Amino acid sequence: MSQVFSDGVVARATEEINSNPPSRRHAENILPHRHKVASPPRQTLFQEFKQNFNETFFSDDPFGKFKNQKGSRKFILGLESIFPIFEWGRGYNFKSFKGDLIAGLTIASLCIPQDIAYAKLANLEPQYALYTSFVAPLVYAFMGSSRDIAIGPVAVVSLLLGTLLTDEIPNFKSHEYLRLAFTATFFAGITQMALGLLRLGFLIDFLSHAAIVGFMAGAAVTIALQQLKGFLGIKNFTKKTDIISVMRSVFSAAHHGWNWETILIGVSFLAFLLTTKYIAKKKKNLFWVAAISPMICVIVSTFSVYITRADKKGVAIVKHIEDGVNPISVDEIFFSGKYLSAGIRIGLISGMVALTEAVAIGRTFAAMKDYSLDGNREMVALGTMNVIGSMTSCYVATGSFSRSAVNYMAGCKTAVSNIVMSIVLLLTLLVITPLFKYTPNAVLASIIIAAVMSLIDIKAAVLLWKVDKFDFLACMGAFFGVIFKSVEIGLLISVAISFAKILLQVTRPKTAVLGKLPGTSVYRNVLQYPKAAQVPGMLIVRVDSAIYFSNSNYIKDRILKWLTDEEAQRTASEFASIQYLIVEMSPVTDIDTSGIHALEDLLKSLKKKDVQLLVANPGPIVIEKLHASELSGVIGEDKIFLTVGDAVATFGPKGVDS
Amino acid sequence: MSQVFSDGVVARATEEINSNPPSRRHAENILPHRHKVASPPRQTLFQEFKQNFNETFFSDDPFGKFKNQKGSRKFILGLESIFPIFEWGRGYNFKSFKGDLIAGLTIASLCIPQDIAYAKLANLEPQYALYTSFVAPLVYAFMGSSRDIAIGPVAVVSLLLGTLLTDEIPNFKSHEYLRLAFTATFFAGITQMALGLLRLGFLIDFLSHAAIVGFMAGAAVTIALQQLKGFLGIKNFTKKTDIISVMRSVFSAAHHGWNWETILIGVSFLAFLLTTKYIAKKKKNLFWVAAISPMICVIVSTFSVYITRADKKGVAIVKHIEDGVNPISVDEIFFSGKYLSAGIRIGLISGMVALTEAVAIGRTFAAMKDYSLDGNREMVALGTMNVIGSMTSCYVATGSFSRSAVNYMAGCKTAVSNIVMSIVLLLTLLVITPLFKYTPNAVLASIIIAAVMSLIDIKAAVLLWKVDKFDFLACMGAFFGVIFKSVEIGLLISVAISFAKILLQVTRPKTAVLGKLPGTSVYRNVLQYPKAAQVPGMLIVRVDSAIYFSNSNYIKDRILKWLTDEEAQRTASEFASIQYLIVEMSPVTDIDTSGIHALEDLLKSLKKKDVQLLVANPGPIVIEKLHASELSGVIGEDKIFLTVGDAVATFGPKGVDS
Repeated sequence: MSQVFSDGVVARATEEINSNPPSRRHAENILPHRHKVASPPRQTLFQEFKQNFNETFFSDDPFGKFKNQKGSRKFILGLESIFPIFEWGRGYNFKSFKGDLIAGLTIASLCIPQDIAYAKLANLEPQYALYTSFVAPLVYAFMGSSRDIAIGPVAVVSLLLGTLLTDEIPNFKSHEYLRLAFTATFFAGITQMALGLLRLGFLIDFLSHAAIVGFMAGAAVTIALQQLKGFLGIKNFTKKTDIISVMRSVFSAAHHGWNWETILIGVSFLAFLLTTKYIAKKKKNLFWVAAISPMICVIVSTFSVYITRADKKGVAIVKHIEDGVNPISVDEIFFSGKYLSAGIRIGLISGMVALTEAVAIGRTFAAMKDYSLDGNREMVALGTMNVIGSMTSCYVATGSFSRSAVNYMAGCKTAVSNIVMSIVLLLTLLVITPLFKYTPNAVLASIIIAAVMSLIDIKAAVLLWKVDKFDFLACMGAFFGVIFKSVEIGLLISVAISFAKILLQVTRPKTAVLGKLPGTSVYRNVLQYPKAAQVPGMLIVRVDSAIYFSNSNYIKDRILKWLTDEEAQRTASEFASIQYLIVEMSPVTDIDTSGIHALEDLLKSLKKKDVQLLVANPGPIVIEKLHASELSGVIGEDKIFLTVGDAVATFGPKGVDS
Repeated sequence: MSQVFSDGVVARATEEINSNPPSRRHAENILPHRHKVASPPRQTLFQEFKQNFNETFFSDDPFGKFKNQKGSRKFILGLESIFPIFEWGRGYNFKSFKGDLIAGLTIASLCIPQDIAYAKLANLEPQYALYTSFVAPLVYAFMGSSRDIAIGPVAVVSLLLGTLLTDEIPNFKSHEYLRLAFTATFFAGITQMALGLLRLGFLIDFLSHAAIVGFMAGAAVTIALQQLKGFLGIKNFTKKTDIISVMRSVFSAAHHGWNWETILIGVSFLAFLLTTKYIAKKKKNLFWVAAISPMICVIVSTFSVYITRADKKGVAIVKHIEDGVNPISVDEIFFSGKYLSAGIRIGLISGMVALTEAVAIGRTFAAMKDYSLDGNREMVALGTMNVIGSMTSCYVATGSFSRSAVNYMAGCKTAVSNIVMSIVLLLTLLVITPLFKYTPNAVLASIIIAAVMSLIDIKAAVLLWKVDKFDFLACMGAFFGVIFKSVEIGLLISVAISFAKILLQVTRPKTAVLGKLPGTSVYRNVLQYPKAAQVPGMLIVRVDSAIYFSNSNYIKDRILKWLTDEEAQRTASEFASIQYLIVEMSPVTDIDTSGIHALEDLLKSLKKKDVQLLVANPGPIVIEKLHASELSGVIGEDKIFLTVGDAVATFGPKGVDS
């Protein structure tokens, strides 16, 4: 007998209310020139659906430019939207190329040492990162629409991938490990493409900026701590990434003595790198000093080790690095078997994280140079890049924060800088790779530490604290989750806190009591404007949210609580009792059936208290639904007003507003 | 180098904007009596936190009544809030008892036949449902705060529990099955108590009304289809619940011939039940005819079968039913072992569904009689009831839609009607249970079919269609999910659709272009009010949502798109170009750091287009955060206005608004 919910609720309420007509003091007092609340032009169901669908999935109107075009033109436009290089390539000139060449060479010199280092985070041989930096930027240059992003392996994704893969296959020297890495890369690409093609790019917005700040900082600390292994030359190092396990490893290794040659190399090069970074930060036009310093470190340290044969004294070196270009790896991917599901899962997670990073970078630079970036198209580009990468011995690539900033400062104009970088990487693979054999691990550790330092964004955290405490909490949750547990847990906490915030938002919307600002007909929150005066005999409440199933009961109860509280207060101060409740609906953009039921319940409760409900400024959707549910008739069409001022003028004490 | 996100973004923007002062045409033209946008009184971090915390978890102020009370009084109030019976019991009188006695006897007569039938849905022996109807209402009467709810086993929860338990232990005759049922009941109770004690009752609001309507109807159809087994006397019946498997069973059994005696009994009693239901619906004061008709059916059919020994001719009967009161079952509960996790999972699901039903009933009747119901306290009561139930051979109990409606119509005054029912059940268990041995299953099937019919609420579905198409979709999704797959899948679809709606709401908020209503200084959505006229040289956009990480990029892009679209349109119509963008912020109740960044980006993009940003009516939280982030300085304090009218009067063409 769930009819109790709907069976004639409206009818019954109508009956109850009409049977007992309220005293309408000023109903005759309708002012001239007063506008009525209008309903929007009626739409068919199809029109309505189409509009909502477009606004949800195609809000950026990607097909707008195809309208009113000839067939051949449409083909060219289509080609351009898949490969933007055909669009900007036509206007490309020598001046742009000069900028791109310099930027490309700069990021290449930064990229090579970072790659060799980052591959270690993913527990892969160094050449796989170099392969990645050759193929991925090339694909991106043709398909991507960001002009400033620098593509390649990045620290955080490498660490995440390494952790997830090792959880699945602890022996990272096995061939299965490498195959699973390619599998994960393939599915990371598929995930990214799918999100873009299905126009679901907005899903990545669910990881909030605050959570990203915390997650990145936590990952940076974790990565830096991991480097203590190479930095101090410790042999038996924990496989866990949390700070407690790592510190225990470090101090238990202290008994056996750390390797002093290693520490000397590490500390001196780290000091050099940090100094150049500091210089670059102070003088923006010296950015290139910091950009090439990792390469200098690698060259100097490799040469020193080679001369002194320090590797015989316990200084760990790269030892082996394959030369030659990327081998084909398409048959290495697990398309069946027991590792398939793990590959899909790892690909999904690392693909999403990689996407978050790339889109954040893309948006930042697009805003700085004021060009538009189509998030969904960008995802297709990144996804294709990783799918092709997985077939050519690459692992998950994305946009790098540090290299993109260098790219931007070095004056890149287009994605051609990525092509330049890619060509440099190709030459490196063909010619000079074997030279990295003597590069000491300690230098790589220093390079990583210096690189990830800039992921710790203290200013952003301070701003979070100042602006929004909940955001700060999300940030700290992610940070401590990463450093005390693992990157996965930190990521999980970030997502959970972000969702908790959304749920809180939709469950507990704000309501405010309004008062009249003296000398105006403007009604404002009395807590914000202490001068705003309440109207005798009336209570004006504004609901600051759409009324949905998730909050309809709360809103109803909250409005009744305002009424009870206010009545208690007014009785105490011998103010007139409340006869009218005005609900200001301007911010209520939508209402669903639960919301309609809540309004009905509110009406019934008010009826019992002998209080009249007046409604001010319902929006287009709300007024339509009030009509559809026939609730507008129950409230009374003459009790729905354009503004709070109109409602007060009609039913309020004379002279308050007219 | 994620500093690109925050490192001096504000400072840089300030610089850019100040370096190029805009033409301020009417800046001197500040009108007298104009109010400035005020900041709310400052709160300490603790105050702010406390207020938010209280609003989220204690919005109903449950401890309000304890304030300014003496210790002994506090104790009594505390006792009363755990056992409301001590509160209303003091004012209890004979008149109330008369109402409760009649209502209690009526629901008991309805309850006994329903119980025997519902136990079958849970694949349990009939006595367990009778046990449940004895203990659960007794506990609830002491702790619950609804005056109209009738407690006991219900059809949908019985079916859900039966399905989930059978998935785990297919042999429902085994002792493990019974033990798992008690375990699930125990954890259902724990779940309910925990939700109440942790003040997380609002979580059940995430199952929307629309989804519940669909889910209930689907469950009703599924339950009715299941009854075809008993109704047609089919021996080999599918264990699946989806409509296709069931219909296949029915038609394949047709070859072997259905049992005509069974069908005769079933059809005639179903006709009788439906007739009485129809009478009760037409004449509200004859509700008792429908209420006692199931009991009449049971008595008549049992007697007939006993006389004619129809059971020997293939009419299936109850056969065995234990007599005596509830045995203790506390050592039957699995507190460890392999079934523990299954018990927790099943308990969680069935506990939540039971809660949803009970709270919906409680709220409906509380609204009808206008008393308040504390959702969280109600959950503690229901939870305690199920925990105690699990220890005394009961399975999950909750409020029954049909019996609660009968209780209400029979004139119940308080939960004493539940006590009366409980006592009748006790007597039944002690004295007359063995008489049900000859009750034919076909009659039980008829009783179930007649009972679940009223769960199909076509009027509610029609209202959903009229008011909100998305709600209708949610309803249909749940409905078809249940009938074509299973109750679990239907439930999953309901939850998924509800969440999708919330996510859509927070990702794609509405924005509207405003125009001035002629003869007023009121600005309204031009789509809703075609008379509203746009102001030359200005575009006024209202953002209808809090600006959070989940929508900040969309809002920024959408505002810029409004600007581009409007500029294209105005150029075409040779209207003045747009120099000012007014963002009306009245509905923006909150903004987080992502929102602040989006506003900064908007400001930069507008700067490039030579458009000035003006802000109208930021709320208390927004203005505070604009100050905290120093963005208000970048926008310019003189560009933040109390109303759109003020902004137009200051910067707009002369004579439009002043």
